[in-house]
Amino acid sequence: MNKRCTLLTRLSIRARSTGDEENSSSTTLDTSRYTFFFHEFSLSFQNLIARVSPGKKWLENCRAYSVPASSKVVRDERFATLDDQDIKHFSGIVGSKGLVVDKDELEVANTDWMRKFKGSAQLLLRPQSSNQVAEILKYSSSRRIAVVPQGGNTGLVGGSVPVFDEVIVNLGAMNSIISFDEVSGILICEAGCILETLDKFLADKGFMFPLDLGAKGSCQIGGNVSTNAGGLRLIRYGSLHGNILGLEVVLSDGTILDMLSSLRKDNTGYDLKQLFIAGAEGTLGVVTKVAVLTPQKLPSVNVGFLACTDYTSCQKMLLEARKHLGEVLSAFEFIDSFALDMVLKHSGDRHPLPDAKEKFYLLIETTGSNQSHDKEKLDNFVETVLTQGLVVDGTIAQDNTQISNFWHIREAWFLQLPPLGKAGAVYKYDLSIPIKDLYNLVEILRERLATVVAYGHLGDGNLHLNISAPDYDEKASFFFQLLAKIEPFVYEWTAAHKGSVSAEHGLGFMKAHAIHYSRSPETVELMRKMKAMLDPNGILNPYKVIA
Amino acid sequence: MNKRCTLLTRLSIRARSTGDEENSSSTTLDTSRYTFFFHEFSLSFQNLIARVSPGKKWLENCRAYSVPASSKVVRDERFATLDDQDIKHFSGIVGSKGLVVDKDELEVANTDWMRKFKGSAQLLLRPQSSNQVAEILKYSSSRRIAVVPQGGNTGLVGGSVPVFDEVIVNLGAMNSIISFDEVSGILICEAGCILETLDKFLADKGFMFPLDLGAKGSCQIGGNVSTNAGGLRLIRYGSLHGNILGLEVVLSDGTILDMLSSLRKDNTGYDLKQLFIAGAEGTLGVVTKVAVLTPQKLPSVNVGFLACTDYTSCQKMLLEARKHLGEVLSAFEFIDSFALDMVLKHSGDRHPLPDAKEKFYLLIETTGSNQSHDKEKLDNFVETVLTQGLVVDGTIAQDNTQISNFWHIREAWFLQLPPLGKAGAVYKYDLSIPIKDLYNLVEILRERLATVVAYGHLGDGNLHLNISAPDYDEKASFFFQLLAKIEPFVYEWTAAHKGSVSAEHGLGFMKAHAIHYSRSPETVELMRKMKAMLDPNGILNPYKVIA
Repeated sequence: MNKRCTLLTRLSIRARSTGDEENSSSTTLDTSRYTFFFHEFSLSFQNLIARVSPGKKWLENCRAYSVPASSKVVRDERFATLDDQDIKHFSGIVGSKGLVVDKDELEVANTDWMRKFKGSAQLLLRPQSSNQVAEILKYSSSRRIAVVPQGGNTGLVGGSVPVFDEVIVNLGAMNSIISFDEVSGILICEAGCILETLDKFLADKGFMFPLDLGAKGSCQIGGNVSTNAGGLRLIRYGSLHGNILGLEVVLSDGTILDMLSSLRKDNTGYDLKQLFIAGAEGTLGVVTKVAVLTPQKLPSVNVGFLACTDYTSCQKMLLEARKHLGEVLSAFEFIDSFALDMVLKHSGDRHPLPDAKEKFYLLIETTGSNQSHDKEKLDNFVETVLTQGLVVDGTIAQDNTQISNFWHIREAWFLQLPPLGKAGAVYKYDLSIPIKDLYNLVEILRERLATVVAYGHLGDGNLHLNISAPDYDEKASFFFQLLAKIEPFVYEWTAAHKGSVSAEHGLGFMKAHAIHYSRSPETVELMRKMKAMLDPNGILNPYKVIA
Repeated sequence: MNKRCTLLTRLSIRARSTGDEENSSSTTLDTSRYTFFFHEFSLSFQNLIARVSPGKKWLENCRAYSVPASSKVVRDERFATLDDQDIKHFSGIVGSKGLVVDKDELEVANTDWMRKFKGSAQLLLRPQSSNQVAEILKYSSSRRIAVVPQGGNTGLVGGSVPVFDEVIVNLGAMNSIISFDEVSGILICEAGCILETLDKFLADKGFMFPLDLGAKGSCQIGGNVSTNAGGLRLIRYGSLHGNILGLEVVLSDGTILDMLSSLRKDNTGYDLKQLFIAGAEGTLGVVTKVAVLTPQKLPSVNVGFLACTDYTSCQKMLLEARKHLGEVLSAFEFIDSFALDMVLKHSGDRHPLPDAKEKFYLLIETTGSNQSHDKEKLDNFVETVLTQGLVVDGTIAQDNTQISNFWHIREAWFLQLPPLGKAGAVYKYDLSIPIKDLYNLVEILRERLATVVAYGHLGDGNLHLNISAPDYDEKASFFFQLLAKIEPFVYEWTAAHKGSVSAEHGLGFMKAHAIHYSRSPETVELMRKMKAMLDPNGILNPYKVIA
């Protein structure tokens, strides 16, 4: 089980043991009892501020709070409230083992992974088949009961938990691998399969999953598809739009849409499955089965950790990496020295380049079929960039332990960042920005603000930005002042540079309001029409994405 | 200019010089004057039979005929017929240079590349900007004038020519390269750019287009996107769903949908652009601008031509190729000996393995960044498969001339196949079939029928099947008998094996009726709803895809 999963489990246990959010109302904002703060500012009802207690780990000191926190988001009263007859009906569909009303279990399912969002669902259903999903949705449509499709609940934007009392439909019990074709490398499975389980299954066959992300020990493939998860392997294997060959999706009226093609080429009319891959986040239908093209698992992996003095060199490094490493390049990650120092301070990891004083660090990975070839390519690359002065220091992992250590540090970029300031507010942004402009934003924000931590998938132009205030002030006015310096500036700047305010995390509930920064009004309007056509009663994951 | 383009030019010249189809009616079938025959049988109004005059080249002896050939397809009388006022209005939009009424030019634009389909448009428009496209469609919608978006008109299923008198909107004048980012490899261009032009532009920058197909000298990127063209590089670089990052599309009401994101990760709501990539074929909107991720051009290319005794060995070869060649594998094409002999007889190429008597041949290509590494990988691969007895004969191209020769033979599989029978009918199918079953269909059809020629992209499970009758009989009954042996059997068999009746060529007009073989009724119904929502007057490329 990876670190993220361990943390999740820890959180779950803690959530069960405390339960002081039990009384959170589904219709009112009640943040007074919580150590999270929420402010409505400009358009930004999604901005979340976490108070961190000094000297303690950030996540363990966070508590979930109820949403909505903005007066703009109120429960849609057209949705029915569950009654005994509904529960009886659902029980008839999924049986007693598929119906969860236990408060502790609901507590966990109502709370998102970051513990930023918490709904108040009174019912969780665990269907065991697509037909059961269809029956659930058909009935829910007829009664106008709102539902939240849920996979591993590892999303970071509040997309997989209820906002109010929506019924949670968790796909976890639908976790069968249906088939695997070793000639074509095509895997067909149910949506509830955990990503790491699939990757292990494939590894035994000499294949691998073309997607890798920190949450792999918990996240489910249905959720990955619904959010078009990006992750670490995207630079090499591309997005799920290319790798997902077929889907089965249940629409809000219970129609089962069989688009489970398992062919690489299939131009038979409109490729409707794509709609359910990208950012639909369960608002258009529930993904129940997935066909995915998986690449051969290659035996040779090398990782280098390199230091550059400036951002221009980082960009040139990417060009050189593409040239020298070409087909074996599998990761190109960057972090600045400020962020790395913070990470290492909290994670306890050793600096891979203890004597380096450079401003930027790159983690570059190759994956290939021949160790000596790959090593030679990497050596040639390093020699070239050293000669060109693009890199001033660096180290190549000499064995699997070193490779793991380097990746451990990389994963800690995400996991360990929140407590950086020890005491402070943390704003997290997941942005795509054209690579040439990407670091400008960090520099501009550093001038405007306090602590700005930047890291990301440079090869994909994906920046993860964490803005934390060094000092914590109990007065809410502090947060307003800080927020005023960040937003809407950060969204406007991103939009002006043709970036995306939602790179790989999706919009969910947290960023639903920000869609217009990265999508034209005409496009958003068409999304609304699409939603209205596919889910006329709006029961699927309401208040999310284009709410 | 590649061979296909040369042929196209030749055809165009010929079309201009004959013009004996001028009087073809837009509302009635008139095949009596033509050497093509068309039969309605079962559901198959698309089945086209080419009579080939003995001893002459097939294409030069083909003439286009008017469609519709089935009584089921009649002009939709809700569409307006052009009047002078319309032409004046269009002239006001595109100017005199963008308005074509010249009969010779219309003749070429009305006729598809295979000269199987011919419309009778009286007007062709060449907009020079997205705004002009928008104005054209806005007016057409208001007047209910049907339009056919057209790119290079190299499609093989009659999707890019009018069926009746639809106005042709050719994107060829919108051929500017807007930008290229050398760090990210992202190219943005107008839809009318010719694929080969883009590839050459990229080559100068050290990049390449992630799509390659025989028609590259004529086809336009807008058409490639609209048909989700597959081609030869798909096994390596994946489909356009993964590589196209952004689109600008004009909807039927003239709305310009700006989805021209140029980011690798951008999960901001529904990824609507995907709808216009896959098989929409201009029925949902007109693609006007494209953003595409292009890979680094790699310097090392190797090609092997290998002989196997049986199909099982071919499949095992694919597994071994993936294992040994992994990241450098860029093509895995197959042809059987019957087809190869036919091709060589007509193309005049030398057999790459003159002494081989095997039943199957594979063309395997690697593309990588290091010639000696790739060569070593290929040598190891060949040694392994020779030792395992999977391959019994083979040769590796020793220089660029030999590489070109091998590819010339491969390209001839398509170009030279029609005259195989010298005199006979040719039925062409483009199918995706799970690799393990793929060749079964060929064997079954050989038992039922006359000459069956099979080749394709084995790595993608894409089979191109040509069925030709050895003798030509003037009596139409012959064709009925032959057709009865092929259809609906070939579609039913493909559907039963979870294949696709339309792999990379799309449905167009030719296979619109066959959609249900590869798509569930619920999925087709949703496509219809999608079409109705996006194009309520049905003016965009009518009678195609889901007509």
